[in-house]
Amino acid sequence: MDIFVYRPGSEKVEEGFTAEQLPELLKDETLTIWVDMDKPTEADDQILLDVFRFHPLTVEDCRADRHHPKVEEFPGYLYFILHGVTANTDSVHFNTIEFDGFLGPNYVLTYHHDMFRSINNVKQMIRTSPISCQRGPAYLLYQILDQLVDFYMPVLDDFDERLVQIEDEIFSLTNPDKTIIERIQHMKRSILRLRRISGKQLNILYRISHGEFKLISPEMLPFFRDIHDHLIRITDLAENYRDLIGGALDSYLSVVSNRTNDIMKVLTIFSAVMLPLTFIAGLYGMNFDNLPELHYEYSYFIVLGVMILVAVGMLGFFWRRGWIGNARVTNEGETKG
Amino acid sequence: MDIFVYRPGSEKVEEGFTAEQLPELLKDETLTIWVDMDKPTEADDQILLDVFRFHPLTVEDCRADRHHPKVEEFPGYLYFILHGVTANTDSVHFNTIEFDGFLGPNYVLTYHHDMFRSINNVKQMIRTSPISCQRGPAYLLYQILDQLVDFYMPVLDDFDERLVQIEDEIFSLTNPDKTIIERIQHMKRSILRLRRISGKQLNILYRISHGEFKLISPEMLPFFRDIHDHLIRITDLAENYRDLIGGALDSYLSVVSNRTNDIMKVLTIFSAVMLPLTFIAGLYGMNFDNLPELHYEYSYFIVLGVMILVAVGMLGFFWRRGWIGNARVTNEGETKG
Amino acid sequence: MDIFVYRPGSEKVEEGFTAEQLPELLKDETLTIWVDMDKPTEADDQILLDVFRFHPLTVEDCRADRHHPKVEEFPGYLYFILHGVTANTDSVHFNTIEFDGFLGPNYVLTYHHDMFRSINNVKQMIRTSPISCQRGPAYLLYQILDQLVDFYMPVLDDFDERLVQIEDEIFSLTNPDKTIIERIQHMKRSILRLRRISGKQLNILYRISHGEFKLISPEMLPFFRDIHDHLIRITDLAENYRDLIGGALDSYLSVVSNRTNDIMKVLTIFSAVMLPLTFIAGLYGMNFDNLPELHYEYSYFIVLGVMILVAVGMLGFFWRRGWIGNARVTNEGETKG
Amino acid sequence: MDIFVYRPGSEKVEEGFTAEQLPELLKDETLTIWVDMDKPTEADDQILLDVFRFHPLTVEDCRADRHHPKVEEFPGYLYFILHGVTANTDSVHFNTIEFDGFLGPNYVLTYHHDMFRSINNVKQMIRTSPISCQRGPAYLLYQILDQLVDFYMPVLDDFDERLVQIEDEIFSLTNPDKTIIERIQHMKRSILRLRRISGKQLNILYRISHGEFKLISPEMLPFFRDIHDHLIRITDLAENYRDLIGGALDSYLSVVSNRTNDIMKVLTIFSAVMLPLTFIAGLYGMNFDNLPELHYEYSYFIVLGVMILVAVGMLGFFWRRGWIGNARVTNEGETKG
Amino acid sequence: MDIFVYRPGSEKVEEGFTAEQLPELLKDETLTIWVDMDKPTEADDQILLDVFRFHPLTVEDCRADRHHPKVEEFPGYLYFILHGVTANTDSVHFNTIEFDGFLGPNYVLTYHHDMFRSINNVKQMIRTSPISCQRGPAYLLYQILDQLVDFYMPVLDDFDERLVQIEDEIFSLTNPDKTIIERIQHMKRSILRLRRISGKQLNILYRISHGEFKLISPEMLPFFRDIHDHLIRITDLAENYRDLIGGALDSYLSVVSNRTNDIMKVLTIFSAVMLPLTFIAGLYGMNFDNLPELHYEYSYFIVLGVMILVAVGMLGFFWRRGWIGNARVTNEGETKG
Repeated sequence: MDIFVYRPGSEKVEEGFTAEQLPELLKDETLTIWVDMDKPTEADDQILLDVFRFHPLTVEDCRADRHHPKVEEFPGYLYFILHGVTANTDSVHFNTIEFDGFLGPNYVLTYHHDMFRSINNVKQMIRTSPISCQRGPAYLLYQILDQLVDFYMPVLDDFDERLVQIEDEIFSLTNPDKTIIERIQHMKRSILRLRRISGKQLNILYRISHGEFKLISPEMLPFFRDIHDHLIRITDLAENYRDLIGGALDSYLSVVSNRTNDIMKVLTIFSAVMLPLTFIAGLYGMNFDNLPELHYEYSYFIVLGVMILVAVGMLGFFWRRGWIGNARVTNEGETKG
Repeated sequence: MDIFVYRPGSEKVEEGFTAEQLPELLKDETLTIWVDMDKPTEADDQILLDVFRFHPLTVEDCRADRHHPKVEEFPGYLYFILHGVTANTDSVHFNTIEFDGFLGPNYVLTYHHDMFRSINNVKQMIRTSPISCQRGPAYLLYQILDQLVDFYMPVLDDFDERLVQIEDEIFSLTNPDKTIIERIQHMKRSILRLRRISGKQLNILYRISHGEFKLISPEMLPFFRDIHDHLIRITDLAENYRDLIGGALDSYLSVVSNRTNDIMKVLTIFSAVMLPLTFIAGLYGMNFDNLPELHYEYSYFIVLGVMILVAVGMLGFFWRRGWIGNARVTNEGETKG
Repeated sequence: MDIFVYRPGSEKVEEGFTAEQLPELLKDETLTIWVDMDKPTEADDQILLDVFRFHPLTVEDCRADRHHPKVEEFPGYLYFILHGVTANTDSVHFNTIEFDGFLGPNYVLTYHHDMFRSINNVKQMIRTSPISCQRGPAYLLYQILDQLVDFYMPVLDDFDERLVQIEDEIFSLTNPDKTIIERIQHMKRSILRLRRISGKQLNILYRISHGEFKLISPEMLPFFRDIHDHLIRITDLAENYRDLIGGALDSYLSVVSNRTNDIMKVLTIFSAVMLPLTFIAGLYGMNFDNLPELHYEYSYFIVLGVMILVAVGMLGFFWRRGWIGNARVTNEGETKG
Repeated sequence: MDIFVYRPGSEKVEEGFTAEQLPELLKDETLTIWVDMDKPTEADDQILLDVFRFHPLTVEDCRADRHHPKVEEFPGYLYFILHGVTANTDSVHFNTIEFDGFLGPNYVLTYHHDMFRSINNVKQMIRTSPISCQRGPAYLLYQILDQLVDFYMPVLDDFDERLVQIEDEIFSLTNPDKTIIERIQHMKRSILRLRRISGKQLNILYRISHGEFKLISPEMLPFFRDIHDHLIRITDLAENYRDLIGGALDSYLSVVSNRTNDIMKVLTIFSAVMLPLTFIAGLYGMNFDNLPELHYEYSYFIVLGVMILVAVGMLGFFWRRGWIGNARVTNEGETKG
Repeated sequence: MDIFVYRPGSEKVEEGFTAEQLPELLKDETLTIWVDMDKPTEADDQILLDVFRFHPLTVEDCRADRHHPKVEEFPGYLYFILHGVTANTDSVHFNTIEFDGFLGPNYVLTYHHDMFRSINNVKQMIRTSPISCQRGPAYLLYQILDQLVDFYMPVLDDFDERLVQIEDEIFSLTNPDKTIIERIQHMKRSILRLRRISGKQLNILYRISHGEFKLISPEMLPFFRDIHDHLIRITDLAENYRDLIGGALDSYLSVVSNRTNDIMKVLTIFSAVMLPLTFIAGLYGMNFDNLPELHYEYSYFIVLGVMILVAVGMLGFFWRRGWIGNARVTNEGETKG
C-alpha cells in the first residue's frame, strides 16, 4: 500500500506513510491523498471497511475480480470499476485487468490485484512534480484515467494493422494461410469484448463529464470530457473493426469459392480435351477382325488430324466461354498447346 | 408448505408452523415470515386467496407454469415470477423452472412446482443462523435471488468451454465431427432463451434496485443492485456467446469450403497428370496397319520419356500455381513423384 | 346482427333485440349491451353512423379489410382493430382475419366479415351464464380479447413442432427432403407476419393496461395486463422462432456443403486409385515392336503387383489424410478393398 | 400555373385566374385558393418570393429536385416535400418524383416539375364538385396526400406478386433463370428506397396528425391520421418484403448448393461405375506374352461377369448411401441399368 | 495566418493584418473577423491561448489530428471539429481531413493542417464581394460549412456509379474481374467511415440548427437547417450504399455458385458421355483368345451403333433434366453433336 500526500503550497508530494496514519490524514480536508493498494491483503480490505467506511458490498466487489466497468455514488464517495488492457494484449488475444477506485472529498483510492501501467506512470509523474496533485483528487483521478485510456490505442492500431494484413493475405493470389479463419474468429472475439468494455466505460465517462456527480467540480468537467472523447473514438473504431472483420470472413468465403471455381475449370478443360481423344484411341485399339479403317494406309494420320481438330475445337469452345485466355487463366491454355 | 418465522431478538428461526397459524402470524408486523410452497396443492392455492388475499389472476399465474419473468405491484404486496436454471441444464440443453414469489410487509412467499436449489440453500442457511432473517423479508428475498442468479454462472462457463472446444474442433486439421452443426444450433437455441430470460430478469432487478417499489426500503437497494450487476454480466456474456456462436457457424462453412477446395485440387492434379498419359498410351495401342512409330527400335523409350516430361510439366504447372508444395499439400506431390 | 343486453340484477342475458330498439337501449346507462355485427350489411354501417354516431372515417375503416391492429380514442368511445388467427392457420400458412371493435360507456360493438371463433365462444359463455356481463362492457371486451389471444397459442406450438422436425430432417443422415428450403421460407414469411401483428397488438394492450383510456376503469386493468402478458409471451416466441428459422437455413447450407465435401472425397478417391491403374494397363497395351517388358515371363504378375501397390498406396495416402476410415466414410474404403 | 378559387357558399370552384390577381385573392381570408405550379418557370419562382414571401432557401429547395421528404413550419405557412411514385414504377425499377407544397391560412400551393397523377385526380374532383374545397385548404391538402399515398399500393402489390413468382422460380425443379439474382438485387434496391421514403413520409404525417402544426385544425386531424395509417401499412409491408427478399437470396444459394450436390452425385456415380470397368478392360488389353487368363476358353465371359458384379456392387453401394432411388434421382439409376 | 476584416458599411473585406493587430480588432464588436490558420505554427497556437483565451485542452485538440467531429460550447465561444473530404477521395479510398473552428461573438477562426478546398472557395468569394460577411460571423461559418458539405456529394455520386458498375460486372456473362471482392471490401470500408462521420456531423448540425447555441441567432437557423438537410441526404445515401454493397457481395457469391454449377454440368456431361464409350472400346480391345464378337463380320459397325445410341441416350438424359438446351447451355450440346 502506497500513500501519497500533497499539502497545498508544498513543492513535493510526500510518500512513505503507513496505514496507521491514514485516519489522521483523512481528517485534514486541505490535503490531496492518494492511496494505492497493489495486490491488497485482507488487512487492506479491513482498512476499506474501518477507516474509509465503504459499503461492505463494495469491498466485496473489490475483492472479487469478475465485474464489468461501472460507477456508483455512495454518500461521501464515488465507487467505480474500470478495465485497463494488459501489457501483452494484442488484437488476437485481448485481455483486460480490473481496477477499483474510490474518489472522496480529499482522497483517491485505487485498488488492483495486478500491476497497472497507467497507475505506475502517474506515480512516476507525481514523484517528479506535484502538478498532478495541485488541483485536488479529481484531477489526480483524471490523470490516471487518461493514462488508462491511452493504453487502449496501441491495441486498436494493432487491430487496424492485422486487418489490413489479413485482407492482403485474402486477396493475394497465392494460397491464403489456412489459419486465417481462426485468426479472424479470434479477432472477432477480441473486438466484441473491447466493444462491450469500452461501451460501458464510455457510459461512465459520459455520466461523470456531464456533471452527474457532485464530488467532481464543474471546472474539472472539460478534462473528463476529454477522456470521454477518447472513448468515443475507441468505441467507434471498435464498431468499425467489427464490421470489417465480418466483411473479411465474407471476402474469404468469396475468394475460396472463386478458387474452387478456377480449379473446376482446369479439371473440366482437361477432362473435356483428354476424354474424347482417349476414346478415339481406344476405338482403333479394338481387335475386331473386320475393322476396315485399320487397313487404309493413311488412317493413322487422318485419325491424328481428327484428334488435333477435336482438341482445338474443345479449347476453342472453352475459350469462347471465357474460361481460357483471361488474365491468370492464360497459362493453362499455353501449357496444353 | 414450510413456514419459517423469525422473532426479532430471537436466536433461532422457528419452524413447523401449520397453515392454520398463518393468519395469526401475519398480523404480527414485527415478525419476518417465510412461507415456501413446494409442489403446492389446491388447498395451498386457496390459502393464497383467502389468507393472503392475493388477486385471483395472480394465483392463476402461479398455478400455470408458462410465464416469462415479471414483477407487478399490488396494494400491499409485490408479485414476481423468476426463472432458475434446472440442475441438469448445460449449454446444449438449457432449461429453466419458474418460481412465483410474493413480498409483503412482513413476509416472503415462494411458490414453485419443482425443487429449487437456491431455495433449499437459503433454507439451509437460516436453519444454521438467523442472520438472513434479521434484516426483514426484503433481505431474505435478496438471499434467495442472489442464490438463484449464482446458479446461472456454471451454465455460462459451460457455454464458454464448449464454444472454445467447438472452435478447436473446427480449426483442427482432422475431420470435424459431423454433429458439430447440430451442437451449434442447439447452443444457439439455448443462448437465445438464456438471453431473453436474463434480459427480462435484468429489467425486473433494475426496477427493484432503482427504488420503484415502496416495500423495499432504500437501505436494501445496494443489495439488489448487486444482483442487478450479476445479471448485467450474465446478459453481457449471453450476447457475447450468441455472437460467437454465429461466428462459429460461419467459420465452419469457411473451413468446409476450404477442404472442398483442397479435395478438388487433389482430384484435378491426379486427372491432369493421368489423363494425358493414358491418352498417349492409348494412342500407341491402336491397331493401324500403318503406324510407323510402332516399328522404330527406340519408340517405346522415347514415348516413356515424353510421358515423364508431360507428368513433370503438369506437376510443375500446378506447383507454379501454388497448388503443390505448400504446407499440408506437399505430401500429394511426394506421393505422385 | 346479434344484440345481447344484460340488466343489472337479472339472471339471464337477454337476446333477440332488433336494430330499431338500439337507440332506446343505449340511453339506459345501467345496461351492458353487446352488439355483434357478423358479415354486416350497408344498413348496419348506417346504424354505426346514425345510431352510434361514429366518425365516418372509422366506419370506412370497418368496411375495408386491410388494416393493421390499432386503437384510437374518440369522444365517448374507443375504436380498435385486432387480428385473430383463422381456423386453418398453421406455421406454414399463417392467416389472420380482422375484427373491428368499439367500446362505449355501456356497450361493446364487434364488427367482422368472417366467422370469429373467439366471439362465438364468448356468445356461448354468456348464453350459459351472465357472469361475463356483470362487470360491465370492459370486462366483456376482456373476455373476447382473452379468447382471441388464446387462439394464437396452438399456432406457436405448431411452429415449435415443425422447427424441431425440420432440424431433425436437416441433421438426419439420410437425404434431407428437397422441399425443406421452401418450407423454411414459408415459415419465415409466417413468422414475420405473426411478429408484426403481435407486436402491434402488444402495443395496444400496453396502452390499455397502463390506464391510458378513461373508459376502462382501474379495477379492469389487471385483466388487460393479463392479456398483455400473454402477448409478450407470443411476441417473444415469435422472435425466438424467427432466429431459429434463420439458423435452420444456415444449418441446411452447412450440411449440404458437408455432403458435397463427402461426395467429392468419394470421387477423388475413386479417380486417384483407378486412373493410375488404367494408365499402367494402357502402357502395356501399346503395340511397339520393341517393348521388352512384354516378353519377360513374369511381367504380367509383376505389373499386377505394382498395380496393387499403387492402389494400396493411394488408399493409404487418403487414409492418412483422414478421408477414409472415419465414422461414416469407412464403408467407402471397404467397398474398394 | 393553375389557380382554383372557392368562395364559400358558391356551387362551383372558379378557375382561370392569372398571377396578377393572386395578391388580391390572398387578401380575402374567406376564400380557399389552390395554386398548382406544373413545370414552373423563373417567373413562377419570383411569385413565390414576392407574392407569397416564402423564405429564399425554401424557394431554392423547390427549384432543385434532390430532396428527401420533410415538413417545416415557417411563420404563416407550412412547407413540405413529398414523393409520389411515377406512373412507370414497379418493384424492379422504383422511381419517385418530388412535389413541394405550401399550406397557408387560405391557400394550398403545389409545385412540381413532373406530371403528378394524384394532383390531376384532385383537379378532376374539384372540377366536378366543390366538396373537396368546402372544408378549407387543409382538407384540400388531405385530398392530395390521400391520392398520393394511394398510388403506392399498386407498387407494393407488384412487390408481393414478383416475390411469390421469384420464390416459385427458385423452388421449381427446372433450372431457375440465371437473371434471378439480378432481379432480386434490383428489388432490394427498390425496397430500400421505398422503405426510406415511406419512413420519412410516415414521420411527417405523424407530426401533422398529432396536431404539431397550428395551421391544421383539430377537426382535420382524423383525416391525416387516416393517411398516417396507410403509411404505417406501406412501411410495414416494405419491411416485410425486405426481409423476404433477403430470404429469397439465401434460398437461391441453398437451392444452387443442392443442385451442385446432385450434379456431383451423378458425376461420382458415373465415374465410380465406369472407371473400374475400363481398368479391367485395359488389364486384358495388355500385350504380355505370358498372360495366362487370355488363353482360357471362358475368360471373356468370366470377366464380363465380374464387370457386371462390380457395376452392380457400385450401384448398390450408392443406393445404400441414398444417392440413388430417392424421388428425382431415380432416373439416373434407370438410365445406367 | 490570413485575417479578413469586414467593417459594416464598407464595400470591401480588408486583408493583410498581422497577428499583433488581432487584440485591437477583437475589441471592436461591430466587425466581422475571420482568422484562417493554415498549417499553423507553435506561435499560432500561442495566439489561441493568449489572445483568444481558448481552453488549453481545446488548443491541444487542435494540434493533434485524430478526432471525430464534435461541437462544444465554452463561455464566449463555440468550438467544433469537422471533417472534409480530401481532393483525391473516391469511393474506394475515402479520406477526410480535419478542420477545427471557433465561433466568437465577432469572429470565426478556422484552423487546419491541410489545404481545405471549401475554405479556399469562401476566401475567393469574400475577395470578390463582401456579401458573405455582411450578416456576421455565423453566416460566414454557414458559407464554409455549406461548401464543406457540398464536397461530399461527388464522393456519393462516385459510390453510386461504382456500385452500378460492380453490379453490372457481377451480372454480366463474361468472367467477373477477380479483384471485385477486393473493391467491394474497400468500398465497404469507405462507406462505413463516411456513414460514421456524416452521422456525427449530422448530430452537430442538428444541435446548431435547433437553436441550442446562443451565439447563433434565430434568423441564422434556417441556413444551418439547410446544411442539416444536406447531411440527412448524405447519411441516407451512405446507409443505402452500405446495404447495397452488402447485397453486392451476396450476389457475387450466388453468381460464383451458379457458375461452379454450370462448370460441373459440363464436366459431368462430358464424363457421362465419354466414359461409357471408352469402356466399350476398351472391352473389344481385350486380347482374349476366345472373344467371339471380334470375329463376326459386322461387329465393328454394331458396336459403333451401340456407342452412338449410348451417347445419344446420355445426352437425352441430361436434356430431359434440363442441363442441355437452356439458353446459355445450348452451345455445349451443339459442340458435342
